[in-house]
Amino acid sequence: MAEINLAAVGTALPGPPIDNARLGELFGSGPVFAQWIDSFIGTKTRHLAVDLDTGEITHSLADLGESAGRRALAAAGRTAADIDLVVLGTATPDALMPATVNLIADRLGIDGVPTYQLQSGCSGAVQALDIAHQLITTGRHRTALVLGGDVCAKHVDLSVDFAKLPPEQLINTVLFGDGAGAAVLTGLPVPDPVRLRRVLVRFTGLNRPPGQRVEWFGLGDRHLDLPAFAEDFKAIEESVPVMAGEILDELLKDEGWVDTDVDYLLPPQLSVRMTDEIVRGLDLPGAREISCVADTGNAANALPFFQLERLLPDMGAGTRAVAIAVESSKWIKAGLVLAKGGAR
Amino acid sequence: MAEINLAAVGTALPGPPIDNARLGELFGSGPVFAQWIDSFIGTKTRHLAVDLDTGEITHSLADLGESAGRRALAAAGRTAADIDLVVLGTATPDALMPATVNLIADRLGIDGVPTYQLQSGCSGAVQALDIAHQLITTGRHRTALVLGGDVCAKHVDLSVDFAKLPPEQLINTVLFGDGAGAAVLTGLPVPDPVRLRRVLVRFTGLNRPPGQRVEWFGLGDRHLDLPAFAEDFKAIEESVPVMAGEILDELLKDEGWVDTDVDYLLPPQLSVRMTDEIVRGLDLPGAREISCVADTGNAANALPFFQLERLLPDMGAGTRAVAIAVESSKWIKAGLVLAKGGAR
Repeated sequence: MAEINLAAVGTALPGPPIDNARLGELFGSGPVFAQWIDSFIGTKTRHLAVDLDTGEITHSLADLGESAGRRALAAAGRTAADIDLVVLGTATPDALMPATVNLIADRLGIDGVPTYQLQSGCSGAVQALDIAHQLITTGRHRTALVLGGDVCAKHVDLSVDFAKLPPEQLINTVLFGDGAGAAVLTGLPVPDPVRLRRVLVRFTGLNRPPGQRVEWFGLGDRHLDLPAFAEDFKAIEESVPVMAGEILDELLKDEGWVDTDVDYLLPPQLSVRMTDEIVRGLDLPGAREISCVADTGNAANALPFFQLERLLPDMGAGTRAVAIAVESSKWIKAGLVLAKGGAR
Repeated sequence: MAEINLAAVGTALPGPPIDNARLGELFGSGPVFAQWIDSFIGTKTRHLAVDLDTGEITHSLADLGESAGRRALAAAGRTAADIDLVVLGTATPDALMPATVNLIADRLGIDGVPTYQLQSGCSGAVQALDIAHQLITTGRHRTALVLGGDVCAKHVDLSVDFAKLPPEQLINTVLFGDGAGAAVLTGLPVPDPVRLRRVLVRFTGLNRPPGQRVEWFGLGDRHLDLPAFAEDFKAIEESVPVMAGEILDELLKDEGWVDTDVDYLLPPQLSVRMTDEIVRGLDLPGAREISCVADTGNAANALPFFQLERLLPDMGAGTRAVAIAVESSKWIKAGLVLAKGGAR
């Protein structure tokens, strides 16, 4: 099989970091609530594509994807003309049509190539990397721009009385963050290559109720008083650590590796507390954890790109990394394996 | 390259056909309007996933996708256990999360395999077939269930005064229809095979404004008086026939065929009138047109499956078919080439 290289990663965050004290203010719940977030969730800041003072949407997904894509291209030393495939994973496209990936391609000056947008939750970055990896493997494509991102701004309703919201709705505002990431993936030689050796995407939702729902509204139902979100946090807390273990086991087995072969672990990132539990459970004695959730919140389809951006400069010759993502909406196990060439 | 076979196709339509007289009633515009649709658009009926008498949504995309998928599996003589990849193309998922493809997979009893949902307009069926074609070509997958469908019911607002709507909004109700389709695509041998020889997907939107927009609303913006649709029908009328010609030329060139080599033409299907113009412009002297738009309306991501369902029983040994799709939202050229084995 052809060797596929992760040439570079770029990311984009909207606006300044929003800390827990600011969310406490917004919710009218004061410093105790902020401290509860600090200790129980662990997320310190997140970035939102909406101005919490005015309610104005400051960034679209196309804005953030364009910035991330531009940075990834620059970091890889590539131009739009080098890109012959674009794949975006998102749960929150700017519109139903056109697909946001095509607005991003236009803004970056990319044309005449296939573009794909995957509708996906927390496994979307891995799904997008998988599609690009496979389409480069066939030889039809050489260099892909792979993007992931989410902007929840359209769902932020500052007119509500946050003090009256049930905790499971407040928690979404605490857990999630907006952002976008991009990677240049290529079958062409690159100096000092980091190989994307393997990508795993496995639907695991048979007979399993959704752990998360996020609705959209149309002309016909937007005036009805329908809920926009539903979460089964108990199912998420129970299942995600188990699935993370299964993903790791499958990736190690497929590579013929043992647990001490993993130098870097990029775990799923719903919250700092849950990430800590998952990392403890995976018990990889020689692996350094690469996490960003304390700063970015769960940036959904952007999050693995933030992790990869932290990983790449650190990877030494001959080191190996495993990334794990679990989508709890209807349960998808996802992961990938990276290895840097050279002596170990 | 491995040979990929289109083993079978299945489709699903919601409710009874709705004729132009019924739309004329709904719009309060009487028989003259119905006759204008008949002559100027040419679409005779469409099926909608909403009951026009009660406003009740009768079918979700998951409902229609499940039915179409079940029929395709049965027609192919396959079961859920044979499917190792699922790809759905749609512009109108039932929710942002979970992706509708995963609900369909669950209902069909499919588990443990990659599932992908492409956010796409009229090129989505071709995009989904392309992804499946490529992923079978790599050898990682053997048999895919490929789906396409759209349900516009959430955007149907029966509380409006149709008599006061501008024509460009009424026209959407006239042009579009709901439905879903599915195909079983396999790298395994099948009797009397129809080969999916080639799939083309090419973003063509650089510096070209969107020809169509369809919005979704969230908690934060659903109370605002924002438009849900925008179309540039002039751009669509001008560009779609030109792009259809470019797609045909590229497919013929790639196959090394001349225009008389095409036995069946599956044209883009916005309306009967525009389809007629496109077919005339393509000028394939030996090709039989396979169209369904008069009965189904533009069923968007389902439509190519309705065409394929009509094509398959008719294809004789050694015959060749070309399908063409143009996405006008941000301009994607798409198409595919089929050939049936045996003497010609």
